Amino acid sequence: MATLALASWATNLTYANLTSGAGCAIGGFPFQPAPQIALNTTLATFSGPPTSGILGANGSISTGFADASIAALVNGIASHVDDYDDTHLETIIHPAGPVASALFAIAEAYGPVAGNDFITAFVAGVEAECKLGLSVYPEHYDVGWHITSTVGSIGAAVAVGKLLNLDTSRMQHAIGVAATQVVGIQEFFGSDTKSFHVGRAAQGGLMAALLAKNGYTSSLKALEAKYGWLHVVSTRENATAYFEQLGEIWEIEKNTFKPFPCGIVMHPTIDGAIQLSNETREGDLKIEDVKSVELRVNPEVMILTGKTDPRTGLEGKFSIFHAAAVGLLYGEATPSQFTDDAVKNETVVEMREKVNVTEDESVPTDAAYVTVEFSDGTKLEKHIEHAKGSIENQLTDEELKKKFMEQVALAIGESRAEKAYEAFTSIGNMADVGKVRMMY
Amino acid sequence: MATLALASWATNLTYANLTSGAGCAIGGFPFQPAPQIALNTTLATFSGPPTSGILGANGSISTGFADASIAALVNGIASHVDDYDDTHLETIIHPAGPVASALFAIAEAYGPVAGNDFITAFVAGVEAECKLGLSVYPEHYDVGWHITSTVGSIGAAVAVGKLLNLDTSRMQHAIGVAATQVVGIQEFFGSDTKSFHVGRAAQGGLMAALLAKNGYTSSLKALEAKYGWLHVVSTRENATAYFEQLGEIWEIEKNTFKPFPCGIVMHPTIDGAIQLSNETREGDLKIEDVKSVELRVNPEVMILTGKTDPRTGLEGKFSIFHAAAVGLLYGEATPSQFTDDAVKNETVVEMREKVNVTEDESVPTDAAYVTVEFSDGTKLEKHIEHAKGSIENQLTDEELKKKFMEQVALAIGESRAEKAYEAFTSIGNMADVGKVRMMY
Repeated sequence: MATLALASWATNLTYANLTSGAGCAIGGFPFQPAPQIALNTTLATFSGPPTSGILGANGSISTGFADASIAALVNGIASHVDDYDDTHLETIIHPAGPVASALFAIAEAYGPVAGNDFITAFVAGVEAECKLGLSVYPEHYDVGWHITSTVGSIGAAVAVGKLLNLDTSRMQHAIGVAATQVVGIQEFFGSDTKSFHVGRAAQGGLMAALLAKNGYTSSLKALEAKYGWLHVVSTRENATAYFEQLGEIWEIEKNTFKPFPCGIVMHPTIDGAIQLSNETREGDLKIEDVKSVELRVNPEVMILTGKTDPRTGLEGKFSIFHAAAVGLLYGEATPSQFTDDAVKNETVVEMREKVNVTEDESVPTDAAYVTVEFSDGTKLEKHIEHAKGSIENQLTDEELKKKFMEQVALAIGESRAEKAYEAFTSIGNMADVGKVRMMY
Repeated sequence: MATLALASWATNLTYANLTSGAGCAIGGFPFQPAPQIALNTTLATFSGPPTSGILGANGSISTGFADASIAALVNGIASHVDDYDDTHLETIIHPAGPVASALFAIAEAYGPVAGNDFITAFVAGVEAECKLGLSVYPEHYDVGWHITSTVGSIGAAVAVGKLLNLDTSRMQHAIGVAATQVVGIQEFFGSDTKSFHVGRAAQGGLMAALLAKNGYTSSLKALEAKYGWLHVVSTRENATAYFEQLGEIWEIEKNTFKPFPCGIVMHPTIDGAIQLSNETREGDLKIEDVKSVELRVNPEVMILTGKTDPRTGLEGKFSIFHAAAVGLLYGEATPSQFTDDAVKNETVVEMREKVNVTEDESVPTDAAYVTVEFSDGTKLEKHIEHAKGSIENQLTDEELKKKFMEQVALAIGESRAEKAYEAFTSIGNMADVGKVRMMY
């Protein structure tokens, strides 16, 4: 009875605690085409009365607001477009994007929503996503689904349903309407459509909750039925077991934040490359110093990020070759290392071509061996056991603030970014979360 | 190169011929809650400027029009809610719903659209859907996907993309944005969410084409790539072979129309039950005359329509027991036999309980054996080789008109229905298909 278990747990849930992941949506909007095209395609022709803000847009009526459905879509796209979001490492789900994008849009449209209620709804959505993910991972992911969005629509529906105070039965129907919208296939990684997945999941989940609120029916057994979600999207046996742990094991406590804006399986390699770059040649490693670079990594790395010759910034986010090259050359991996210009840079291309990858099942996905052979014949090796940002090596509060500020200041300036940081980190105490946008 | 093959075939396609399937959307709207709830949930809060008609609504500005995205959603729901639509029998796809719902909405919003262009776009969309369906059927269906909507979003994208004159590359991207939205799981058959699948497919495909037109990228190999649509949603080998037949074998010529508003695998049984009802007791078969009813049918019938005790009209559409009962009792199976009242009627319930089903692999899905044993010990058997509405036993033009008139007159009255019939059957000659709604 997974659907009933999830619906009744969520409807009965009360205030709990979480950390905030709002930074990405603000930083992602102005610098990538995907959210802009999506907004331009929908706003004038397909938006109802503008109730909800586009995070990171300039806040004017003409482009900064849309109806809640389009705001959820565009903010969802913006939250994911930099591939810089939070990660539930056991499932590689980025839980905040779909849930927060839907919740902020609804909070503004249907407020006032108290901080405690907002956070409770957020946690309900994240727990729903991650329990679903655990139920089908890795089979579901291995066949080619983009798990963040396939579970994201259900998480968004549970979160919005919680905010709308759906009863248990309507919450079950909301889960069903969301579950039947399975959005996100891995072929689109490296294109505008990857982030569309997250936006569409937010929008689809939001719509599912609103339809169920108005009496739309789906099924009371949407997840566990023979031809329901769990069986259609995965081959896992006993897929409903995780729902017995709701409220006992909290998935949100295992959520982590990315230090680098790119595919998470590349992070151990980047961590190693940056350390090697900083520790050698007085931090000024030159292309001519390097004869070759050898990586030994988990085979998953090549499946997900095996692009040898990325041609756009987005493709660079899924190229282990590019990742190693920029880590070594620049000693950092920020959004600036994953632009179209950065992947076409001649020195970067030359460095990429020196990188060789060995796949090794015995290397965990959060580990890597990075070896540089220099022109003078010397070698340096770095073994990363747990990459920066992994559960054993998490970002500190200070590093999280730095990440937030770096992204957000680029979009809206330093002083507004500082105010936004204060606002988003104090959501739990607000009387009306829908007003957060007016505080920066 | 299935994606390129489909995209370049569609962009190069010129005027061809087809029959019209517009009747269902007009008939379905006013009598089922699903399209009404969907319209009420979206119209006031989520519609942009109202450019496109809700077929079957009363045509007033306040409820009869919405933006093209919402019109596609609601008309798609209405087209499918009666389960009375057209059927491509090899795949059980109902091709017109998602494609026509998106096309009418766009034709009204972005017109003028000449009849020839409209029909060419419609054919492109239907061929896309059915070739995709053939590529993955039956594995895709057997695992639990609702094939009409899973291929429908791609069909709608191809059709709208054709109407918008996308070039081949943008058409490929449109196919990708549509392909990543896999909507429709069979657990929701018998609920409002089944028809939501068709509406969401229309809406998702429409949005995919508009995004691609504005430069949104997905993949040039959305269908055939290792982690692309064909492999993620089915286990079929050599799934791309059907795309070589585009323009040589026309799937639209194999499209048929349903004589009964319910699951198509029940049609042979209904056909037999109606014939038995009409041929015995002077067409006045009474419940006390019947001792038992024996059906011998393909096993697929029980998988899809095995509900023994339907409790709503929608569930009745997927109950072979209900279908046999009403066919025998009333000698017909029209929308009136699939209402909530009809499934709760005591005589119908009593008759359902007399029905026994034997599954037999050797009986094709368009065939059935229906045997009635009467209280006096006599028996009558009817063997239906090809059900009414199957490719070998299609509805005549006159029967199609009767079907259209029966549905549409209930919604908008006899004389407007007559005008609507004239209008929808002469679409090919119109100067602006967006004006069709003004002709009735």
